[in-house]
Parts: sequence; C-alpha cells; structure tokens
Amino acid sequence: MIKRIRSRLLLAAFPLLIASSNLLAADGGDWNIASRVLPPPAAASEALSSSIARTPQPVPPQPGMMPQTPEQWEAFVEQATGAQTIPLETLEQISNTSIEKQQLAGVTVYWVTPSTIAPEHEDHLFLHVHGGGYVILGGDAAPSEAATIASTSGIRSISVDYRMPPAAPFPAAVDDTIAVYQELLKTMPANKIAIGGTSAGGGLAFAAVHRMKELGLPLPGAIFAGTPWADLSKTSDTLYTNQGIDRVLIAYEGLLSAAAELYAAGEDLKHPLISPLYGDFSGFPPTILISGTRDLLLSDTVRVQRKLRDQGIVADLHVFEGMSHAGYLFEAASPEAVSTMEEISLFFKQHLD
Amino acid sequence: MIKRIRSRLLLAAFPLLIASSNLLAADGGDWNIASRVLPPPAAASEALSSSIARTPQPVPPQPGMMPQTPEQWEAFVEQATGAQTIPLETLEQISNTSIEKQQLAGVTVYWVTPSTIAPEHEDHLFLHVHGGGYVILGGDAAPSEAATIASTSGIRSISVDYRMPPAAPFPAAVDDTIAVYQELLKTMPANKIAIGGTSAGGGLAFAAVHRMKELGLPLPGAIFAGTPWADLSKTSDTLYTNQGIDRVLIAYEGLLSAAAELYAAGEDLKHPLISPLYGDFSGFPPTILISGTRDLLLSDTVRVQRKLRDQGIVADLHVFEGMSHAGYLFEAASPEAVSTMEEISLFFKQHLD
Repeated sequence: MIKRIRSRLLLAAFPLLIASSNLLAADGGDWNIASRVLPPPAAASEALSSSIARTPQPVPPQPGMMPQTPEQWEAFVEQATGAQTIPLETLEQISNTSIEKQQLAGVTVYWVTPSTIAPEHEDHLFLHVHGGGYVILGGDAAPSEAATIASTSGIRSISVDYRMPPAAPFPAAVDDTIAVYQELLKTMPANKIAIGGTSAGGGLAFAAVHRMKELGLPLPGAIFAGTPWADLSKTSDTLYTNQGIDRVLIAYEGLLSAAAELYAAGEDLKHPLISPLYGDFSGFPPTILISGTRDLLLSDTVRVQRKLRDQGIVADLHVFEGMSHAGYLFEAASPEAVSTMEEISLFFKQHLD
Repeated sequence: MIKRIRSRLLLAAFPLLIASSNLLAADGGDWNIASRVLPPPAAASEALSSSIARTPQPVPPQPGMMPQTPEQWEAFVEQATGAQTIPLETLEQISNTSIEKQQLAGVTVYWVTPSTIAPEHEDHLFLHVHGGGYVILGGDAAPSEAATIASTSGIRSISVDYRMPPAAPFPAAVDDTIAVYQELLKTMPANKIAIGGTSAGGGLAFAAVHRMKELGLPLPGAIFAGTPWADLSKTSDTLYTNQGIDRVLIAYEGLLSAAAELYAAGEDLKHPLISPLYGDFSGFPPTILISGTRDLLLSDTVRVQRKLRDQGIVADLHVFEGMSHAGYLFEAASPEAVSTMEEISLFFKQHLD
C-alpha cells in the first residue's frame, strides 16, 4: 500500500520520468549509457583536481595484457613490485619512523615504530595488511602504508608480508595474517590491536576477522578498511558505473579479474574468506571505511557498511569527491590524503581500548 | 618529496597506467567516457534491483522541455504537484499519524503527530522542509516525508510549506523556514529540535542553519540531510559521472538547471544561502547524510560531509548500493528505505538533547 502510494509520488515529483515511461525496459533491464565528456572534478582539492587534469585518460586493458603462466606472473609481479619499491631507509626518512624486518610465527613482518608515539597509543598496535590485489606490493613495498599511518596516528605498527600466488594462493594470506595475530596475542590483549589496510588489504582485514571468529579468537578493537576489495566477483554496481572513470583500477577486467582468479585458485570467488562481504559481520569491531566518488570499489565499500550497520556496528564512512581507488595513497600530500589520515587517527583514538 | 615517492608507487602498483601514459591528456583534461551497458545493481536489495530492472532506461530531457514563462511554470508545478498529491487522510492512515494544517508566523505548516511518541522524544520536534527542487511538492505534498519520519522515529514533526517561485523566489524559502523556527523557539529550546529534509529540503535545512548563525539564533540539535541539493551550480563530479544512471534526476540539464535559475532569480548560484555548500559550517549541529551510488547528488552529499568534518562536526554518511536520488522515498517498502529510516531514528535519539 505504502509502495503504491509512493510510486504515485515518484511520478508527481519527477514528471520527466513520465516522458520516458512509454519506452519498454530492455531485456533483463540492461541500460545503454551513452558516452559522455567528463571534466576533472572541479570541487576536489586543487592538488587532486589538477593531478587528474594532467592524467591521460585511463585506457581499459586489452584482452591478453595480463600474464597467463606462473612464469609470466612472477615476471609481472617482480616488475610491478620489486623494481619500484621504496628503499626502507627512504621510507623511514619520509615517514619519520624506524622499520625493522623480522620473522614472526614463520611469517615475514615489518615492525614500524614512529618517532613519536601518541600518549593514547602507548600500548596499542596497528596490524597492517598491504594492498595490491593479493598479487603485488609484497616485500619491502608492504610497510609503506603502515609507515604513513604509524607516523600520522602515532601508533606502533606491524605490516604482514603475507605469501601470495601463484606460489601461495588462498588461504595463505589469511593463514599468515592469523599466525601473526595469534603470536601478538601472546603479549597483548586483542582490543588494543587495530587491523586494516587498503584495497586487498581492507578485504583481507575483514577476511581475517571472519577467520578469527571461526577460530574462537578474541577480536581486534578496531578496523580500518580503505576502499576494501570485499567482493572479488563482478557484482558491485560501481564496477560498471565507474568503469573508465577510476584512473587507478580503470576496470574489473584486467588486473582485478586476473588477480581474483589467481588468488582463489579454483575456490568459489564468493567464499566468505575470499570475498568477506559474504560473511557474517555480527560481533565485528568498529570500522572506518574510506572511498571516493570515482572509486571502482565504492560499492564494495558501502556494501560492507550496510553489512556492519545491519548488525548495529559502528561503521564510519568517508567518501571523497572525485577520488579514485586509494587516491589518498597516491596523492599523499593532497588534502584528501591528509583528511583520510586524520580520520583514521581520530577513529583509532576513539575506539581502541 | 612524499608526493614524488608516492607517484613512483602508483606506477609500481598499477602497471596498467604505464600502458596509457604515452597518451596525451586532452585539452583541459576532459576525458571521453565510452558508452557502456549497465545491468541493474545485482547487490542492491531484491526490491530495489527488480524495480530498476523494470524501469525503462531514463531519457535525458530534451532542450525546451522545461517551462519558460511564469504561466507555464504554474501549470507545470500544478501538474507535477497538485494532481498527484496524496490526500492528507490517506497519508494519515498509511503513516499512522494525525496531520493538522495551520498558519504559524504567517507561514503554512503541517503538524504531524505520530500515534506513538518515543519516550526519548517526548519533548522533541522534527522541523521538516520538503524537497522538489524549490519549485514543486508544496501544499499537501509537503508533509509526506515528515509523516514517514514522524512515524518511524516516533517524533512530533512540523513540515513547512514554504513559498516557492516563480511567485516567491529566494530568499522566501529560507525566510519562511526561519520565521517558523523563531516561532518554535518561543516555546521550546533549540537543541530539542532536529531540522532536515531530502534534496532541496536537505539544502534548505543547511541554508536555514547558515541564516540562523547570521541572525545569532541558537542552533538545532541535529540535522538530517537526505541527498541534499547543496550546490545549485553544475560543479559536483557525480552530476557528470552519474548522468543518465540516476533514474530519478537523470541529468543536471532539465529540472535541476531550470529550477536553480528560477529559484535564484538573478542571485549568484553560489550564494551560501542558495548553495549552502559555500557557507561556513563551523558550529553546525551533528548531521546525518544519506545518498546512493547512483545518486546524481552523491557529490553534493559527500562534499558537505567534508565541510562538516573539517570543522570537527559529527557527519554520519550512509551510501546505499545502486540507489538513485532519494530512492528511500520512492521505494518506501525496500530494505534501503527501512534502513534509512532506522538510521535517522537512531541518529535523532543519539543526538537530540
């Protein structure tokens, strides 16, 4: 009844829809969205807007651009990760941290200690899991985001250099994260740990918490999920609406689809430890979520927010104008990046015990 | 320095960008976004997704579709608003409220009393300003959203049937809202009042608070802004990216641009009381913001969030998968609408004194 009445309101409110209502819906409801001219986002910060204005239009990848064999993957990963990783000494300098590489529970980790630890965080730790689609940005590239957050939040951090495919597909990344977490629990309470990361790192943080629940482990005190890759299947709406508009990811086809297949290695892409969106979020810790209007994973981000909110869990969402996937990492001096780091810092101080 | 290093990281992380970096940026940085096939949003609720699947593809308005003369506007407004307004008795029945039309400070208002008032809201009031682009949905259409919120939140409400153009352009809507507010302040403290609405109503709520600050009035205790029309100029990024994708507003050209011109009546569209985004948000009350991934005004919504957060103000944002502008009003029985009303209810209970 309410629905019928409201539908009448729709027509009242928006007579333009009436004009179109004589058309038939296409088979299956698909729409053909016309081409359009897209100017740089005028209301983003000057730093972000001018950076986008200087960016050549993103070109969706051609079929066959991605590696096929394990050898091609190794070469791709090495080229994409290794050759351009920031040397740890440089990272220490620009982030004003000290970084120590170590083995913990058989996993390579990077301890990141900021030069100044915030008084609130004296006994806190940020457990960081890096992004890169579960295939790239391991090794010395892993602690880069952890160093930024350690520095801006004033919190000790540890970044997990989890194993990745093709050598070690799912569940290696989850297993390594859990192994490190269990080792940490030997010396500190769970609610003094925040877990998080960006992109695949955000997804992995959620997957790890699902796994902690399965194992009956105490849960962390907070989660940071920056534009989390929470659904590895091609389901989210912004994979379509922001295709070719997100200058970082560009399209699902290409790195995302290839990485999803390589990581899952035959498992269902909707397995809750692969696509944590399909898991049960009851009892999850308070979570901060970051995205942008041009983010290909905006839908992943907001779908997780609803899952959390449906369980009554704090799920603070911040969406930045004109920002593509993980833009706060790529324009680190932009106001968007500064605000992102400030929000994370506030959130951790508010929610860690 | 950080920026240069990060730019190297960008290339490391996303080698696909390298492939496109030999292209030149177009003049002014404009991109040509190719046409694409857009399926219904599979991860929206069944109710919303199937409704979109049944919706004929939105057709952007043709030039000349909008009224030109005052007489044409009156006819348009009457057709769009009057003929399909829900009779008040029907609205009372479906929302389980009683509605009383009255003059207050010379302004027509609708008092909306829910059958059950929540204990927390015994002495609270929701001051509602309706949407409709500042041109339509006045008269008996005004209290429709107020009735829904009154009912779901258990809060007494009053909806302002503010004057509209062509007869009464800006600042009439702001003046009428302020007149009602000042009358209310004679009998109750400001911090027991929440103000808000959807679309132009959300924008008007912000503009009214700007005006209250100018007048030195005490401010309300909370704001609800559903997909607020906070910038009447064509500036926001999602006016471009979601053009033809938002099935309600469809495009800036048409009702929005015509309504903006009619309402401003020669004033600068970026006047802070017309486009409240350009005002100073210091001291604003806690605000809840609602939008969707397909919302043409998603950018307006998130830009306001940043303005508020930059002042340290609570600004809770909820973005719904696949939802167009104000979809929670048009699919009132959908889970998206139910969640929206639950979030508003929680927010008012949390933040009203």
